[in-house]
Amino acid sequence: MKPSIPKGTRDFSPVEMARRNYIFNTIRSVFQNYGFKQIETPSMENLSTLMGKYGEEGDKLLFKILNSGDWAHDLQDDELLARNSIKLTNRISEKGLRYDLTVPFARYVVQHRDEVTFPFKRFQIQPVWRADRPQKGRYREFFQCDADIVGSDSLIYETEIIEMIDQAFQRFGFPVIIKINNRKILAGIAEFIGAADKIIDITVAIDKMDKIGLDNVSKELLERGLNGGQINKLKPILMLEGNNQQKLETLRTVLAESEIALKGIDEMEEILRYIANSDIKNELEIDLTLARGLNYYTGTILEVKAVGVEMGSISGGGRYDNLTGIFGLPGVSGVGFSFGADRIYDVLTMLDKFPAETATGTKIIFLAFDQRGITYSLPLVRRIRREGIAAEIYPEPAKMKKQMTYANANNIPFVAIVGDDEMAQNKAMLKNMLTGEQSLLNIDEIVSQIK
Amino acid sequence: MKPSIPKGTRDFSPVEMARRNYIFNTIRSVFQNYGFKQIETPSMENLSTLMGKYGEEGDKLLFKILNSGDWAHDLQDDELLARNSIKLTNRISEKGLRYDLTVPFARYVVQHRDEVTFPFKRFQIQPVWRADRPQKGRYREFFQCDADIVGSDSLIYETEIIEMIDQAFQRFGFPVIIKINNRKILAGIAEFIGAADKIIDITVAIDKMDKIGLDNVSKELLERGLNGGQINKLKPILMLEGNNQQKLETLRTVLAESEIALKGIDEMEEILRYIANSDIKNELEIDLTLARGLNYYTGTILEVKAVGVEMGSISGGGRYDNLTGIFGLPGVSGVGFSFGADRIYDVLTMLDKFPAETATGTKIIFLAFDQRGITYSLPLVRRIRREGIAAEIYPEPAKMKKQMTYANANNIPFVAIVGDDEMAQNKAMLKNMLTGEQSLLNIDEIVSQIK
Repeated sequence: MKPSIPKGTRDFSPVEMARRNYIFNTIRSVFQNYGFKQIETPSMENLSTLMGKYGEEGDKLLFKILNSGDWAHDLQDDELLARNSIKLTNRISEKGLRYDLTVPFARYVVQHRDEVTFPFKRFQIQPVWRADRPQKGRYREFFQCDADIVGSDSLIYETEIIEMIDQAFQRFGFPVIIKINNRKILAGIAEFIGAADKIIDITVAIDKMDKIGLDNVSKELLERGLNGGQINKLKPILMLEGNNQQKLETLRTVLAESEIALKGIDEMEEILRYIANSDIKNELEIDLTLARGLNYYTGTILEVKAVGVEMGSISGGGRYDNLTGIFGLPGVSGVGFSFGADRIYDVLTMLDKFPAETATGTKIIFLAFDQRGITYSLPLVRRIRREGIAAEIYPEPAKMKKQMTYANANNIPFVAIVGDDEMAQNKAMLKNMLTGEQSLLNIDEIVSQIK
Repeated sequence: MKPSIPKGTRDFSPVEMARRNYIFNTIRSVFQNYGFKQIETPSMENLSTLMGKYGEEGDKLLFKILNSGDWAHDLQDDELLARNSIKLTNRISEKGLRYDLTVPFARYVVQHRDEVTFPFKRFQIQPVWRADRPQKGRYREFFQCDADIVGSDSLIYETEIIEMIDQAFQRFGFPVIIKINNRKILAGIAEFIGAADKIIDITVAIDKMDKIGLDNVSKELLERGLNGGQINKLKPILMLEGNNQQKLETLRTVLAESEIALKGIDEMEEILRYIANSDIKNELEIDLTLARGLNYYTGTILEVKAVGVEMGSISGGGRYDNLTGIFGLPGVSGVGFSFGADRIYDVLTMLDKFPAETATGTKIIFLAFDQRGITYSLPLVRRIRREGIAAEIYPEPAKMKKQMTYANANNIPFVAIVGDDEMAQNKAMLKNMLTGEQSLLNIDEIVSQIK
């Protein structure tokens, strides 16, 4: 019976690791280029830190760690026999695995408030764990790549995040649409038509305009409890068209009486002004249907979609007003963004956009026919390694076919074959595994050939 | 009340992260230079994979994860009321956090035996968790950096590991002693004196020779159950002196009748022969007192100590015969090595050997007096970032003192100050924060100055 791993978790093979490292390194390098500083927090947090932060469903999805030692000893008969799993969990578990990077970051900021200088630009690339039902593309252990700036409400930071998104996907080599919205505008729309609790219904309706048209959308809104007058007022927003500037102008006219909407429009306009003289290559598009994170985002909302690929959003973020209030430090505003590494991996795979160097590690391997050949090869391998080139030596004088199989299975692009003739001439037979070309070369020639 | 983290765990600040990344990157780069391929395994493994692999004490130190859902529902009255924590754990927990990287690697090799080509050179840099009592230098979550080659018993791989150790510590910039021993020699010594079960007592005795002398060591060995004749036979080994070659010659003479010892001596000699024409800079020393991992190492044993620093071993490894037998795949021999990242961190700190670039991220920050200055700075910051230089802009026209405090707190080596005069001349005032020097420069001059 083969051993296995828990469902929803993954082993990563050397090729997968090389590709994942490529993604993480690209994102890390962009974050650092913009002055973000990396932190890491422990995999486990106290349950008091985690519970109640992700809603009732989230509490259930936390992986809880059983206390060490004789944890059952002090439990009372009645609480045992009640078999109340939730209550018993509180008694036998004090720690849980982190569910996201945001709550631990908030905890970090409060715990280290005396060491941190605001604005604090941090990034964090670490796994998180959720006891979700595993399914295609949804794992119980997955990495998040978050950047946040806390302690400032300057819209310069929204701008930097948009530029970082653009930079990252330029480096990944596929086009994206960066969608932007503002919670304040959504709130203003709802306020303007007198339906403050209907933000979600409104964004859903706007989203459906393309597919089912104004009449059907109006019908749905009626069913959802809006009246004719409200739907009439909503019409210019449902029909919103044009480029970003035109959309903002329309909104400014229609929502002229909503203070909160005007604030949101001002914010959006300032960001667009900063971006206008940047050199971003990907499209930035106002999209009023963006409604992610409405329970914590308070200003800008961002989302990224890959162009021409059937896939949900591959990254997202937004501005929040009160990151750390729950830990006793109110008034810390911030804006953050998270790259969806698994989704990016999938898009790069679909589009076959992984750089060639992620397919291989070792550049050259020495293969010998006998022990003397191995001893002869050792200093040559060392020489190549000193040049910073990954090199191997097949460790035994096995059959040449077996050695070649090893080189092929490991995608090693060059082999250097060492037999009596080669040793007699102080050389090795260098074979390019892609083209099949062979040439008898000395070590200097080999180095310059494979470099 | 400040939030906190579970005892034995750590937050890593930006400076600590930069230093840890330096250590991990150095090790990774050495591993890759020698043709090792990275894999990662899930943080959680099935408890059936982990239990029984680390002894009874290890089973207790595993962090167990409570099953999701209504885990208490199916428990019987009698098992609940028995309050047997160990038995109950089996009923309510199926997963645990990995305790080391070796068992998950063994599980990986067996699970993926059809994809893996042997010899398989893998490395793995990931955290592990142990419910140990936390104390100075001992954490409940810490990283291991392991490289192993499985599926070959060639001593070329011992040689490569010794060269990697040497390379890594050359890059870290402090000298180490690489100690080597061989389990077969220890077994041969015990066999030779007729005390096969006394390997540990013998190594302890050899270790004490320096401190307490032959007479006292003999006395202790008597107390531990050896007789006078045995101690007499052991004497030449207790008194072993000279360089590696001389030590091996003595051992070969003294242990001439032990087949297993001679095998170990042959192995050691072959490795020393390979190493002799390498260019390792650190000392490789035969040390018969090395007795780590005697319950699984079967040949070479390696350990690294920093020279001139009061600290235990900072890295170690060895050869084992049967990595995967427990998962049903017998006969997989291998040799592995683990860099002790936390200890290396401590040595680098003590010796003040961290490279300067690990102290800072952002290279330059733009500071402006007003909104116009911020807008003026944006394209300049972008230009610098495009050069691959980490740059920031202070996002608000705050008091200059506050902005300078931010630059200082973040160890940013250059600030570019933008006032009316600077803008009028299409320049900025570049200040070197280390020297205090200031000069009025255009953007090209700034780029070349800070590069």
